[in-house]
Amino acid sequence: MSITVIILAAGKGTRMKSALPKVLQPLANTPLLGHVIHTAKQLQPKRMIIIYGHGGELVKQAFADEQIDWVEQAEQLGTGHAVQMTLPVLPTDGLSLILYGDVPLVSLQTLERLLAASKDSGIGMITLNVEDPTGYGRIIRQDGKIQSIIEHKDASAEQRQIQEINTGIYCVSNTKLHQWLPKLSNHNVQGEYYLTDIIALAVADGLEIASIEPEFRFEVEGVNDRLQLARLECEWQNYQAEQLMRQGLHIVDPHRFDLRGSLKFGCDVRIDINVIIEGDCELGDNVQIGAGCVLKNTKIASGTVVQPYSVFDSAIVGQNNQIGPFSRLRPNAVLADEVHIGNFVEVKNSRIGFASKANHFTYLGDAEVGCESNIGAGTITCNYDGANKHKTIIGDHAFIGSNSALVAPVHIGNGATVGAGSVITRDVEAQSLAVERSKQVARANYQRPQKLK
Amino acid sequence: MSITVIILAAGKGTRMKSALPKVLQPLANTPLLGHVIHTAKQLQPKRMIIIYGHGGELVKQAFADEQIDWVEQAEQLGTGHAVQMTLPVLPTDGLSLILYGDVPLVSLQTLERLLAASKDSGIGMITLNVEDPTGYGRIIRQDGKIQSIIEHKDASAEQRQIQEINTGIYCVSNTKLHQWLPKLSNHNVQGEYYLTDIIALAVADGLEIASIEPEFRFEVEGVNDRLQLARLECEWQNYQAEQLMRQGLHIVDPHRFDLRGSLKFGCDVRIDINVIIEGDCELGDNVQIGAGCVLKNTKIASGTVVQPYSVFDSAIVGQNNQIGPFSRLRPNAVLADEVHIGNFVEVKNSRIGFASKANHFTYLGDAEVGCESNIGAGTITCNYDGANKHKTIIGDHAFIGSNSALVAPVHIGNGATVGAGSVITRDVEAQSLAVERSKQVARANYQRPQKLK
Amino acid sequence: MSITVIILAAGKGTRMKSALPKVLQPLANTPLLGHVIHTAKQLQPKRMIIIYGHGGELVKQAFADEQIDWVEQAEQLGTGHAVQMTLPVLPTDGLSLILYGDVPLVSLQTLERLLAASKDSGIGMITLNVEDPTGYGRIIRQDGKIQSIIEHKDASAEQRQIQEINTGIYCVSNTKLHQWLPKLSNHNVQGEYYLTDIIALAVADGLEIASIEPEFRFEVEGVNDRLQLARLECEWQNYQAEQLMRQGLHIVDPHRFDLRGSLKFGCDVRIDINVIIEGDCELGDNVQIGAGCVLKNTKIASGTVVQPYSVFDSAIVGQNNQIGPFSRLRPNAVLADEVHIGNFVEVKNSRIGFASKANHFTYLGDAEVGCESNIGAGTITCNYDGANKHKTIIGDHAFIGSNSALVAPVHIGNGATVGAGSVITRDVEAQSLAVERSKQVARANYQRPQKLK
Repeated sequence: MSITVIILAAGKGTRMKSALPKVLQPLANTPLLGHVIHTAKQLQPKRMIIIYGHGGELVKQAFADEQIDWVEQAEQLGTGHAVQMTLPVLPTDGLSLILYGDVPLVSLQTLERLLAASKDSGIGMITLNVEDPTGYGRIIRQDGKIQSIIEHKDASAEQRQIQEINTGIYCVSNTKLHQWLPKLSNHNVQGEYYLTDIIALAVADGLEIASIEPEFRFEVEGVNDRLQLARLECEWQNYQAEQLMRQGLHIVDPHRFDLRGSLKFGCDVRIDINVIIEGDCELGDNVQIGAGCVLKNTKIASGTVVQPYSVFDSAIVGQNNQIGPFSRLRPNAVLADEVHIGNFVEVKNSRIGFASKANHFTYLGDAEVGCESNIGAGTITCNYDGANKHKTIIGDHAFIGSNSALVAPVHIGNGATVGAGSVITRDVEAQSLAVERSKQVARANYQRPQKLK
Repeated sequence: MSITVIILAAGKGTRMKSALPKVLQPLANTPLLGHVIHTAKQLQPKRMIIIYGHGGELVKQAFADEQIDWVEQAEQLGTGHAVQMTLPVLPTDGLSLILYGDVPLVSLQTLERLLAASKDSGIGMITLNVEDPTGYGRIIRQDGKIQSIIEHKDASAEQRQIQEINTGIYCVSNTKLHQWLPKLSNHNVQGEYYLTDIIALAVADGLEIASIEPEFRFEVEGVNDRLQLARLECEWQNYQAEQLMRQGLHIVDPHRFDLRGSLKFGCDVRIDINVIIEGDCELGDNVQIGAGCVLKNTKIASGTVVQPYSVFDSAIVGQNNQIGPFSRLRPNAVLADEVHIGNFVEVKNSRIGFASKANHFTYLGDAEVGCESNIGAGTITCNYDGANKHKTIIGDHAFIGSNSALVAPVHIGNGATVGAGSVITRDVEAQSLAVERSKQVARANYQRPQKLK
Repeated sequence: MSITVIILAAGKGTRMKSALPKVLQPLANTPLLGHVIHTAKQLQPKRMIIIYGHGGELVKQAFADEQIDWVEQAEQLGTGHAVQMTLPVLPTDGLSLILYGDVPLVSLQTLERLLAASKDSGIGMITLNVEDPTGYGRIIRQDGKIQSIIEHKDASAEQRQIQEINTGIYCVSNTKLHQWLPKLSNHNVQGEYYLTDIIALAVADGLEIASIEPEFRFEVEGVNDRLQLARLECEWQNYQAEQLMRQGLHIVDPHRFDLRGSLKFGCDVRIDINVIIEGDCELGDNVQIGAGCVLKNTKIASGTVVQPYSVFDSAIVGQNNQIGPFSRLRPNAVLADEVHIGNFVEVKNSRIGFASKANHFTYLGDAEVGCESNIGAGTITCNYDGANKHKTIIGDHAFIGSNSALVAPVHIGNGATVGAGSVITRDVEAQSLAVERSKQVARANYQRPQKLK
């Protein structure tokens, strides 16, 4: 069965009070529409058609890499009108899922169930039973079969007791869409074309309308303002945390955990409060991430302990490292096993070898450090000459004295020692000592400056 | 109509277990009483009378700049007794609002509604309908009109069903207060003078007592212990976050957002988790504030991105800056547009020019940096000679090599270069190179110290 | 009356998906079983018997310092079977409390009440009234007396209405245990020996079964998966915060406060959001701890203010210090009164004297600093020669210029001055100036490197 995905994404989102089109508002760092596209793609649809309107160029740019048929809805004449716009590119066979760019969290499983349920009759929908249905379109059933959808304002007092509501998500055979969409009219108070009217057309055709409910309510919740966005972000974060905990992740406080991407993890991984995971991260067995750490696109092997307030971006960290607090790993920081990176240390585009240590106030940029070397406190690789970046190579078992400046390009040999406070501009041979230092001079009975009035 | 504001602020607050008078306990960094004063002042009252008692001197000092008539209540003989103390200074015309220093969050709108409602009859009050009224004074009405207030312990079983309670906030004509207050008696079990008794006196005078309800319950909630204080802080933070989100602010998690002052913001401003805003802050369009940042009295222009864990106090930041993580801006740090301030960089009382960069481990104190200059990692302005602070002036397009110390007062000219690791004690001319460095010496086959037993 | 404590700790905890035995999973940084042992010890029991099984060696190691009789339950044949294992070491007099290693938070007060209630009849239990008892064993009473416990699956529709449930915690006379335990049978659907069956045996013996309820529900909640662990951690943290607030601690947001150990505190101590307290900490009067600080085994005297994101481990801090933000105190950092430690400063195994200051980018390791000395920005004590640690001694009223390296062992005398950027390798006499510096040289019209293509 070939699947078409239709996503309505033309809304402006005035209540967001934003220059950004609503469907580009981020939830867990991904645009709302991106969540829908991501889920829909997993159905391997034959075609994905997105109806854009307000801020359309920005929307198209944001998903320029995706295989999408973009269809413009120049005027906002209702959901039915929006789907009508797809007719020129809509396949004539198979089923279409009709989704919304501002209902971001519908799950693959729910969509698969909707497709399965809709296959026979050619029309199905997601409904939801809620405690307080005020404001929503009610599902009118007779003998259990869906007869129609009544908008809240048109509903009788009795109908308003109905707690099953319309979510707007449908699955319809494309043959039927080609028949029904041209028949929609705007002869109603709002003067709009309602997609909802296809239900009446289906019933008139004698079709039984399939329906399913989502596993979670948040799957069908839409976003119209920043309060709803924040609420959905919160529900999504709680859901994600719960899923990860069921898989064995130790999250100290799931209400203070933010996953904005994907996380793979081994056994007995512990995540302390207020950790943020962005992009795609992997944590090996027994990894511990301290409070307040921010990890982006980072991979950490087993046994490594990261102390609080460490910020990593695109780093690869080996086993049994001791890192932090206040460590910063920037893109292409690659740490071998047993490495120690301490407080106020920054590593960028550098490889640090087995069991080497940089425990305090160090900047390693564009460097290669061998095994079991010790980089003293305050060491700085002077990798930038104002125009170009250069490499610093440090061998195995080297000892770089504190407060040294290594002016790249420079090579410090195996077993070499650099005296504290040296500015090293020339290569240092293996096993040698290099010092750049003047004579310490003293002046007795020195009178320090006095406080000026 | 002239308005008098009377605030009862004599309570000790024993349950706070604090050396501070209760009304000085902070909520969102402002003393409880400060909130009430701030709101009341917006009514432009003719007179503001505050009844103090315990810790009175501290209370008076805390608001020494305000136009307040301080009235002492030496003994704690009840709320009626407290208001009696105001008689010598109470105007004889207009209306008085009777407020409480430990009921901090009553809103201007609610007070304005109370004043409007009370104008005709000369007496009005705020009541509240609650689910569980246990312990509160109940509002007894007949044909909808308030007849009296019955304390919980004096109420019949039937009266205890009443869910409308007394908040203690009244609006009364001063003429009436001058009549009624002297009539209050302490002939009751507690031996106290109850302000509540003015209701009976008003009814006896044939007056109809106006009443309004507050928009939010927190407006009339009092603080007696630290649990209530924490709860009210939480409600206030949630309320503030909701208001800001309605105005278009993107707060990633409103339950992890703290506003302790005021925030102005442009379009599409994003605030990540656990940000604290203190004092008066302004954020321009598209500004992004990373997780855990603390901003106090700081103004940031449009397009600037602040990465996590940056702490700013009294700074002014231009457009399109890139700042953080772990940046510290201290008072009078003034950054122009396109500036980069990186990790572990501190700026104090300094101006940084257009597009200049200090990306790592730098202290800029009492400095002026021109445009497009690069301050290398580990650079330190030695601004303090042990007695006085001196200035460091760096021109445009300068390049300060890493790990340099600039001993102020010193001037680095336009286009000048400082070699890495230099201690610069004399001015550096424009376009010149300055280096302070010894010769690098080597000793082959150096034997490093051995581990002592 | 002699007390025996029996703790069942043999469960594997498959749903935790962990390599660790369930009873070693941490709650507030202490293993679940550790909480139970800690509480039980306060009863000064004659004997503490722990039944171990899965991962037993790890469990025994974790509590190697405790006086425990370890009893193995090699096969998991039910709770009755587990307690049967204790018979060889079970005293023949006194009362036994039967507790669970995965029900960590039962309180001393509750256990004392259970003991008191059980003393006369020789058998008692903790029951709990819950809104939704689904799944739990129900307490069947007649004329108020406990008759039996019916498992949910065996209960009639009527019995399922009962909201009083079995918590599994019992107090039983050892005489009776010696009689009853051998009588337990596994003639049931599960083929297991149920401890619950002792209730029927007691009733058959004509004993009246005492019962008490815990003060808090969390006291009897067990942990079977990571969701339950996170929920219990949250309840425990909220409970702890509430207790501390009742004692007068100002916690700005009790939902963002983590106590993983013990905290003693004076009057008007303020803890901002997201602070973590680990181990045993003490905070004097008026101490303020800024947002995001992590304090472990640290003692801070009155009046000290710690700014955000400071991380302390095993430090002792005097009165009226100003510390942070981004300060790191490591073990054996001992600060006198009026000390200032500023941003990006690390202190390890060092004593800092009265009113001395290290305000920026400084590493003080293995140092002693006298009174009123000023340690300039970027100062580093070079305490490690690659093999051994050495001491740096700085006297009173010394002034260490910025970016200096003090190569230990070295002594800087009272009133001495070190010039900025110096590497000090030899002692500096009192009142003298020491400088290690070359001549600053200049090259005019210097051409900086050009961008390579």
